[in-house]
Amino acid sequence: MRATVIYGAGDVRVETVPDPKLAEPTDVVLRVVRSCICGSDLWPYADMPPREHGRRIGHEFLGIVEETGADVRGVKKGDLAVAPFVWSDNTCEFCREGLQTSCLHGGGWGAKGVDGGQGEAVRVPQADGTLVKLPHTEDDDLLASMLTLSDVFSTGHHAAVKARVSEGQNVTVIGDGAVGLSAVLAAKRLGADRIVLMGRHQARTDLGREFGATDVVAERGEEGVEKVRELTNGQGTHAVLECVGTKGAFEMGVGVVRAGGAVSRVGLPQYEDGPIGVGVFRRNVTVTGGVAPARHYIPELLPDVLDGKYQPGKVFDRTIDVEGVPDGYRAMADREALKVLIKP
Amino acid sequence: MRATVIYGAGDVRVETVPDPKLAEPTDVVLRVVRSCICGSDLWPYADMPPREHGRRIGHEFLGIVEETGADVRGVKKGDLAVAPFVWSDNTCEFCREGLQTSCLHGGGWGAKGVDGGQGEAVRVPQADGTLVKLPHTEDDDLLASMLTLSDVFSTGHHAAVKARVSEGQNVTVIGDGAVGLSAVLAAKRLGADRIVLMGRHQARTDLGREFGATDVVAERGEEGVEKVRELTNGQGTHAVLECVGTKGAFEMGVGVVRAGGAVSRVGLPQYEDGPIGVGVFRRNVTVTGGVAPARHYIPELLPDVLDGKYQPGKVFDRTIDVEGVPDGYRAMADREALKVLIKP
Repeated sequence: MRATVIYGAGDVRVETVPDPKLAEPTDVVLRVVRSCICGSDLWPYADMPPREHGRRIGHEFLGIVEETGADVRGVKKGDLAVAPFVWSDNTCEFCREGLQTSCLHGGGWGAKGVDGGQGEAVRVPQADGTLVKLPHTEDDDLLASMLTLSDVFSTGHHAAVKARVSEGQNVTVIGDGAVGLSAVLAAKRLGADRIVLMGRHQARTDLGREFGATDVVAERGEEGVEKVRELTNGQGTHAVLECVGTKGAFEMGVGVVRAGGAVSRVGLPQYEDGPIGVGVFRRNVTVTGGVAPARHYIPELLPDVLDGKYQPGKVFDRTIDVEGVPDGYRAMADREALKVLIKP
Repeated sequence: MRATVIYGAGDVRVETVPDPKLAEPTDVVLRVVRSCICGSDLWPYADMPPREHGRRIGHEFLGIVEETGADVRGVKKGDLAVAPFVWSDNTCEFCREGLQTSCLHGGGWGAKGVDGGQGEAVRVPQADGTLVKLPHTEDDDLLASMLTLSDVFSTGHHAAVKARVSEGQNVTVIGDGAVGLSAVLAAKRLGADRIVLMGRHQARTDLGREFGATDVVAERGEEGVEKVRELTNGQGTHAVLECVGTKGAFEMGVGVVRAGGAVSRVGLPQYEDGPIGVGVFRRNVTVTGGVAPARHYIPELLPDVLDGKYQPGKVFDRTIDVEGVPDGYRAMADREALKVLIKP
């Protein structure tokens, strides 16, 4: 089959690799129907040291079950199913607590011996714990929205849940990438009243407004903080959903959060130490968030996607086939595309 | 009257100062019955630059109402009342949310124009918002326990509440000072199952065991982290109550917290940047806590103190009069005393 392999910064290739086969009785082989490129894939695309043997990449996909291991009960051949961006057994103590990203028997896509999602097929380990069955559909928009459950919409939702966004609250979302826009949608879904989106790319912030943003702040740094404070009586917002991952974005988060509120991070931090000293302490600011346990959220979010009430798939603004993946990376890195959908 | 004034590191004096007088119609003048020295008073005692004009100090006290301003309704002359360690109007938007430490019209004791608590009397601003009426008693133990509501027990409780300690949870408490021991008691009160106390002063950890600690870990740093992990199946505890304030204590907290858990800080951070990078993010660790809104918690904690079910006053192991305050500071700084009670 054809699959995406990354060899280093800027070096993404599509190659012929061995077809996936069942290795464990808990495995499924899934024929990929939709996949996509993630903002987090752009980190290795930006700075991964070159290596002789590449590694498989991609962690968001849905597809048709082709083969099932002997122990698989949850899905059968022919089912459509979505995989979260981390596989998990869904039975260990962490999974039972809803933290499937810390599963004791789980792991990541594209790790050694595990397929990546940006290819034609995937061996899915711990399939009963990992996959969530979907209704069959040929509807492109619905497929796109269901695909966002594997990562980007679930991640936005996680940011909002961890920040305890609730009815009537004010929220700031930092970042107008696909996760930031998903966080706007998630905050709206949880009843947020005012949603300030910090971003400067108009096509994106326009979609943010469609998703529920009531205000857009294009300024960054101190100036951006000032602007958000002006909009909120000088106090900032209860919840800040930090969807970028840079230290500057976190610092803005600390700047715009209201005393007693939370900065919830879902962008992978590109820093080790952050400002959590007396200023944060005196104002009782909570720093929360982390890698989203998408598997935990899919059952809750799926019905709202199926009935069309929420259309997170609108974050996709370009569609390619597998051979087009390298150009898809380039387009996202150049900010030509917001998020690229792959139809293998 | 006699009151405590700090002039710099190691330089605490008791001086004759003007008797407090009502300045605003919302003021009360309180004759102090019990006060004490706080672990946080030891920070300026350790490193405050010398100054010509000292500043008043002390922020934990209870006493008898001597005079009330014209607008005061909540207490009357002769009432016994306790003051939280921050005064507040208890009506602003933050107070209504239970965050009286961020009151828009409040402030700290010992600030310019405001009395400190380590003296014979105090002018209490915003008295209706600040003071909580207590039943009259001559019982030394009960007075001591009621005094802890003004800071140390409420602060331990805040650590536990922010970490969402609940029935059956495992908790690590870092620090065997009065706040750490109070946090043990608070975690026990909220139903924690296993409580690991990290501390190395046996008289203190013995009291910790009496308060509910099930395990004591004397080791620090990596070794201490290892020990707590051994006690918890390698996973760490859901809640970590960090009651010291040093960077090392916070790092231990990050080391012993379970994935999905929280490090809740109530020791004033003596650092600006802390480790909140990928390790914290991947494990969905929340960093929370802050300055405790004691005023918010007193009504909840008071009944359990009044009926003797909890005796947080046991943290006091020395009693002095006002003239003894300088020696009280020395004794606490030298770790001769755990927490010093002042009977003016």
